[in-house]
Amino acid sequence: MKINNVEIEDTYAEAFPITVSRVLITAATEYYAKIAATEATGFGTSVIGCPAEAGIDCFVPGDKTPDGRPGYVIMICHPKKDELKHQLIERIGECILTAPTTAVFNWLPYEKLEDKTQEKRLDVKLHFFGDGFESKKTMGDRTVWAIPIMEGDFICEEEYGYKKGVAGGNFFIMGETQGSALMAAQAAVDAISLVEGCICPFPGGIVASGSKVGSLKYSKFMKASTNHKMAPTLKGKVADTEMPANVNAAYEIVIDGVDEETIAKAMTAGIKAACTIPGIVKISAGNYGGKLGPFKFELQKLLQ
Amino acid sequence: MKINNVEIEDTYAEAFPITVSRVLITAATEYYAKIAATEATGFGTSVIGCPAEAGIDCFVPGDKTPDGRPGYVIMICHPKKDELKHQLIERIGECILTAPTTAVFNWLPYEKLEDKTQEKRLDVKLHFFGDGFESKKTMGDRTVWAIPIMEGDFICEEEYGYKKGVAGGNFFIMGETQGSALMAAQAAVDAISLVEGCICPFPGGIVASGSKVGSLKYSKFMKASTNHKMAPTLKGKVADTEMPANVNAAYEIVIDGVDEETIAKAMTAGIKAACTIPGIVKISAGNYGGKLGPFKFELQKLLQ
Amino acid sequence: MKINNVEIEDTYAEAFPITVSRVLITAATEYYAKIAATEATGFGTSVIGCPAEAGIDCFVPGDKTPDGRPGYVIMICHPKKDELKHQLIERIGECILTAPTTAVFNWLPYEKLEDKTQEKRLDVKLHFFGDGFESKKTMGDRTVWAIPIMEGDFICEEEYGYKKGVAGGNFFIMGETQGSALMAAQAAVDAISLVEGCICPFPGGIVASGSKVGSLKYSKFMKASTNHKMAPTLKGKVADTEMPANVNAAYEIVIDGVDEETIAKAMTAGIKAACTIPGIVKISAGNYGGKLGPFKFELQKLLQ
Amino acid sequence: MKINNVEIEDTYAEAFPITVSRVLITAATEYYAKIAATEATGFGTSVIGCPAEAGIDCFVPGDKTPDGRPGYVIMICHPKKDELKHQLIERIGECILTAPTTAVFNWLPYEKLEDKTQEKRLDVKLHFFGDGFESKKTMGDRTVWAIPIMEGDFICEEEYGYKKGVAGGNFFIMGETQGSALMAAQAAVDAISLVEGCICPFPGGIVASGSKVGSLKYSKFMKASTNHKMAPTLKGKVADTEMPANVNAAYEIVIDGVDEETIAKAMTAGIKAACTIPGIVKISAGNYGGKLGPFKFELQKLLQ
Repeated sequence: MKINNVEIEDTYAEAFPITVSRVLITAATEYYAKIAATEATGFGTSVIGCPAEAGIDCFVPGDKTPDGRPGYVIMICHPKKDELKHQLIERIGECILTAPTTAVFNWLPYEKLEDKTQEKRLDVKLHFFGDGFESKKTMGDRTVWAIPIMEGDFICEEEYGYKKGVAGGNFFIMGETQGSALMAAQAAVDAISLVEGCICPFPGGIVASGSKVGSLKYSKFMKASTNHKMAPTLKGKVADTEMPANVNAAYEIVIDGVDEETIAKAMTAGIKAACTIPGIVKISAGNYGGKLGPFKFELQKLLQ
Repeated sequence: MKINNVEIEDTYAEAFPITVSRVLITAATEYYAKIAATEATGFGTSVIGCPAEAGIDCFVPGDKTPDGRPGYVIMICHPKKDELKHQLIERIGECILTAPTTAVFNWLPYEKLEDKTQEKRLDVKLHFFGDGFESKKTMGDRTVWAIPIMEGDFICEEEYGYKKGVAGGNFFIMGETQGSALMAAQAAVDAISLVEGCICPFPGGIVASGSKVGSLKYSKFMKASTNHKMAPTLKGKVADTEMPANVNAAYEIVIDGVDEETIAKAMTAGIKAACTIPGIVKISAGNYGGKLGPFKFELQKLLQ
Repeated sequence: MKINNVEIEDTYAEAFPITVSRVLITAATEYYAKIAATEATGFGTSVIGCPAEAGIDCFVPGDKTPDGRPGYVIMICHPKKDELKHQLIERIGECILTAPTTAVFNWLPYEKLEDKTQEKRLDVKLHFFGDGFESKKTMGDRTVWAIPIMEGDFICEEEYGYKKGVAGGNFFIMGETQGSALMAAQAAVDAISLVEGCICPFPGGIVASGSKVGSLKYSKFMKASTNHKMAPTLKGKVADTEMPANVNAAYEIVIDGVDEETIAKAMTAGIKAACTIPGIVKISAGNYGGKLGPFKFELQKLLQ
Repeated sequence: MKINNVEIEDTYAEAFPITVSRVLITAATEYYAKIAATEATGFGTSVIGCPAEAGIDCFVPGDKTPDGRPGYVIMICHPKKDELKHQLIERIGECILTAPTTAVFNWLPYEKLEDKTQEKRLDVKLHFFGDGFESKKTMGDRTVWAIPIMEGDFICEEEYGYKKGVAGGNFFIMGETQGSALMAAQAAVDAISLVEGCICPFPGGIVASGSKVGSLKYSKFMKASTNHKMAPTLKGKVADTEMPANVNAAYEIVIDGVDEETIAKAMTAGIKAACTIPGIVKISAGNYGGKLGPFKFELQKLLQ
């Protein structure tokens, strides 16, 4: 299969379950909402080494937010529910409460639930920071706390919905040069940023150093190591290289989302965008024979 | 004492020791160096709740870096040396190694040490990711590893210097309105960003919610709570308010640096910049009677 | 009338007709689309001294553009049709054709016209730059030129729709401090940026130096001079000041749009956003007794 | 000659005289200084079709500016002195006076002149906007005007130095793919941005569509047309192509500067930076047998 003369490999991305929360950060201006969202989602690329996987999902205009101010939705993800709760407490308490002009609200689900009492929530007891000076308020159909701080009153919800989502949606972009592969990766990330309900948690949304599970040489202490089959500088040195002769760089896009449908939509948008860039040779994806997780996203089906 | 008609309170900032590393991230372009630096220093405002205090220190032009490409220096700080080592491993491994086009180098000390063997370093064994395909190279007077990854070879040093630095340098900016206080805080952060060897680890460099040690009401489980004396919405409600009648918002700037001299320089530059903004009433600072730490920065002395 | 305790003056904004074109700039990535859009709309605040009024209207995602790539719509406005044509030629030829990875399309009307033959268009003969090497192509329902340039082929339409629009929609934001007024102006511009079909042509969307028609002292050679009634530093010095005692700074938001309805929508969104900011005293608007133009936007009616 | 395996062609860039002014824009924060600088230098790529060539030269920290606030230096260039004066009047009056929190100062020469009375200046009578309410002030060794406007007092100088500079310094970057050539162009622009006294006036500093003087086919009315010898999509179609077989895209960097030395420094820094990027094949430069101008910059000499 080819799109704009780019080969779409007949393979699939393998993904696994993760627990997801979505948090809306509003602020006086877009600029300050983004400042807080960026700090709160940093150091959040992969739970292999980071305390969570986190990123900015989407922008919400002021006429759609509880306080009439513009905001960004962030997603925070962790395989374990208790760790997710801990991350919500620390990332909201240290990176949003402290940020200029912000307020913070639960933003999961964005679809209206018929019966909210059925919804599962994690309790983040932010109001104790108010030291007894905090008070409850009603904002639309939400109950919020007003916590007196140095810049005025900080408005927040305390319970954040969570749900089972999907982590590790992915595809590889292989280019004739590093520049073409990176431009395509950037185009892919731009396109995926418009799909609501997902994040690309790596730096700028892009992975430069894909890994394989385990290690050939250091298997005693390394759980993951470089995906040597995809390393262009090893093309002439390893027997099992998977890099075509005319490919000199590859990037991976990794996607976490609220459900399978969102991952599929994001992968499709991202691959299509990557294929608009000159010098792209091939799109592939990472899978591990079903050992990593139960979700499969077949590239050629997505792009039919 | 007054500067531009802003009162400088006769008080001091109290600061404490912290262990500091400085890491240079270079990339093909400034843009991608900043992407990696931002991800690697996120979720890093205060070790009360974050795994480290981290931020971008300064830009380094390509003619001053080991590989001739532009870069940003980040600082990562933690009270404990072992935790700092752990943070270097994870933040470099997950947020820089994975970022497009980057390389990473030790950037402490920036002054040339007479005897480098005396310098203390933390060993971050990044090369194992190369799974035996990595190789040593010489770059100027540095020995670096070249690790084959998907985009080409990732160049890195593995040992990062550390030193005792100073955390918690601070001052308060009190304004007639939230807007004037925030504009002054932004001006202060802009000025401090030009002082080499320090960071303002909070979101955008600014703290909106200063805290006091302990809690009046929830002392059994809260180690810190809102600084109610500085909360403008409590002015008429608490007896011990310290907010002047014409002050309606305050922000705190918190600074971590490589040494006392740098903190002093940064505080001076920041306060002077804040005082250029209309609607600023007063500058103060936070201290705890010597219980927090051994370093004192007297505002009026700094500004003489 | 009050919104969030901000007084909405019982007055109206007076606006006048202007001829408007809308141009879509797509590029490989959002970043490069914005680079071109920014250059092409610079030096475009007011036709009093600039060769056009110009600005970025809105973002268009790749799945809505002719070439599947992300883009920004810019608006270029001039009272005279021939001058508008000249500005289209120069701004497209010098600032978009020259910009990396761009393509350029007519984006007026965005509503589908029943009978396109009725639509008025300005002919911008860009293809002559191709020196005979250019060729015609079909892209969806558009005929475009492919012009061979250094980076590949530049894709462009050559005929750009124009229509009578409205210039000079406006309102004033008066704040207790410069910081609060500017934060509110920024919030207003953020909100207006989401209204499709209009621009705020001044720097960052904001006017710091409103003017009156003519001059008291230099009337022989000055067509416009400072609006001294609105200057806070003249409050105690001129008899006819209109600045309330507690106002220390004001900003004006000026809006050009494709029609009256869009201006009304933009003014409403902008004023509401400004009123979310602490320290705002009053919203007013500029009018000239009908001498400037035929369009009236009454503030209190907009906000009912 | 080769740098990092990139061929440096044995040729030269030909440049011509232009009249240059340098203007310092300060503001409350870096952000607002950049907003004004961007608006004031827009629509300023080439005097072939733009009213001036203009761009941002460099950042000046607050401790080096007349008013203690951060600022950006812009350069405005035109072959004719009178046109330059006109452009100063309009760009300062419409794009800086109107921008939030700005002040504006002459920034040429930055070297101290022994005898300032000898210096040539253009008089931009900005103070008339004050309508008689303006007043003179002293700021350091400068006399400035304070003009009452809506946000407070606008501070400005009125006389701007000018000098003969050099326009059209240039080089070409030829890459295996569009992505590699553009990444190298971006790296070059990043490096040149650090050289004080020059600008890259094209969008983002980069030219995608280099031109030749005159036209083969439309010579009656086209003064310039596409440089067909450098168009990759014409490689197989024109006999006189200059694009190597493995080059698929080229970009040009054009530089205007205060003198020959600065252009030489900028070209050197830019070419070196471009050669750090993978997939770059060749660096060349544009010249016209001395018909365009008297300045020659030989590439191989610069890089010795």
